[in-house]
Amino acid sequence: MKLKKDMKILIVGLGLLGGSYAMALKRQGYDVSAITRSQSSIDYALEKGIIDRGGVDIDPELVGSADLAVFALYPNVFVNWLKENGGLFKPGAVITDVTGVKSCIVYEIQKLLRPDIEFIAAHPMAGREVYGVQNADDRIFRQANYIVVPTSNNTAGAIELCRDLGQKLGFADVSELSPEMHDEMIAYLSQLTHCIATCLMCCNDFRGLEHYTGDSFRDLTRIAKINDEMWSELFLLNRGSLLREMDKFRRSFNELYDKLASGDREGMREMMRVSTTRRARFDKAE
Amino acid sequence: MKLKKDMKILIVGLGLLGGSYAMALKRQGYDVSAITRSQSSIDYALEKGIIDRGGVDIDPELVGSADLAVFALYPNVFVNWLKENGGLFKPGAVITDVTGVKSCIVYEIQKLLRPDIEFIAAHPMAGREVYGVQNADDRIFRQANYIVVPTSNNTAGAIELCRDLGQKLGFADVSELSPEMHDEMIAYLSQLTHCIATCLMCCNDFRGLEHYTGDSFRDLTRIAKINDEMWSELFLLNRGSLLREMDKFRRSFNELYDKLASGDREGMREMMRVSTTRRARFDKAE
Repeated sequence: MKLKKDMKILIVGLGLLGGSYAMALKRQGYDVSAITRSQSSIDYALEKGIIDRGGVDIDPELVGSADLAVFALYPNVFVNWLKENGGLFKPGAVITDVTGVKSCIVYEIQKLLRPDIEFIAAHPMAGREVYGVQNADDRIFRQANYIVVPTSNNTAGAIELCRDLGQKLGFADVSELSPEMHDEMIAYLSQLTHCIATCLMCCNDFRGLEHYTGDSFRDLTRIAKINDEMWSELFLLNRGSLLREMDKFRRSFNELYDKLASGDREGMREMMRVSTTRRARFDKAE
Repeated sequence: MKLKKDMKILIVGLGLLGGSYAMALKRQGYDVSAITRSQSSIDYALEKGIIDRGGVDIDPELVGSADLAVFALYPNVFVNWLKENGGLFKPGAVITDVTGVKSCIVYEIQKLLRPDIEFIAAHPMAGREVYGVQNADDRIFRQANYIVVPTSNNTAGAIELCRDLGQKLGFADVSELSPEMHDEMIAYLSQLTHCIATCLMCCNDFRGLEHYTGDSFRDLTRIAKINDEMWSELFLLNRGSLLREMDKFRRSFNELYDKLASGDREGMREMMRVSTTRRARFDKAE
């Protein structure tokens, strides 16, 4: 099953990501509706031609006409939305999302929906340190990764549809992970990095540091401007995996500390060589 | 004392930084010579018009004619060079450098030079993850910080000359720190970030992570491609300060770990708010 031009797509939550989805899909001629909390976001999106229609109310007709719905909400808000309104979707509707944690919501959502509505989870690995549909920009998907997160409850058709969505949005790499593997990966690749950036910023309150810094510090703390409401929720929803990754990191950090303290230059160099070799795999194609 | 167009400038060590210095100075019409290890670097720089003359030998006449010498060598190589050849400089010559650690070399160098030669230390906070004069690019100085690191032995004239050099190279911000303050700042802003990036890369050897990553991980590990020879030397030369900064960071990291483990969401959010507020000070002017 691939995305077809006569499919009606509904975006729920028209922020930076939802807006960027709408922008990419509208540009390719799809019919895109939106439901979001703020009227000004709807007005903006209509004015810019990013959506065909939308509103702040949960319009049963709008929900009931959607062939594909993309949820771009905080995890708990997302689950509650479906608990209250999931019954409005028509038989055969496919629901996907952009949520940054999976195990804790995917099974629950698949269980609470009617059997004739399918939820196929996905995680677009793209974002910026700004918010709102006003900052939407579908160029953030270029060179970025898109992870489809199926369970054994998902059909081959919905998985294919979700992969096709990732490709049509313009992601460079579309892959699949189980919810458990996803959460382990994301604990390391995304949540741990946000922990580190936050702590690097918190651990020192020298004044005037901005006059002495180089770009390495700026790079490591770019994400230290952090949405505390969203990230604290994501951390808690993936607590087990994140604590394990934090433990691995601090073991490695303590190892380097001990090597430095004891003057083990060759041991430090060996860690740096491992680091250099591994990092090379992450270079983006230029 | 300001840089004057009839001053002869000698760069010792024509790599990425030395080459970028030469490029910026030559562009403004200064007379620039170079001494470096590899003939191909000299040939490249001559061909590109980045230097007026140069060689791989320590030519007494070339050294003796320099009014200002910039050393862009590894710390220990730098100190040994001056021990062996410092006597070749003429009376009144000013020597500066780009070395990333200061306390451990500045006093030693000021002591070993003849009293009629002045060493004024500086640290340009600019660089790239590539090496060699072939990658030299004086645009790396724009929007970057330049730190002059005087001691009580330095004259006002040499300090002014060094500040003027930073400005003429195109740095956005020129400031001054004592060697001790410099080393403390740099332990935090530069060396700690390199420790973190290295450990973040070392602590996990999942395969295929590059298919799932987002930009936050790429940003935090850009500097994980690390020159192990240079950085292990820098770490050891600033061991006390770096161990103190590593300790501060791991206390902060352990604090976040404990808050997550105990489900203290408000405590995590407070750390994220501190982080967000502090990080805002580091934004570059657009």
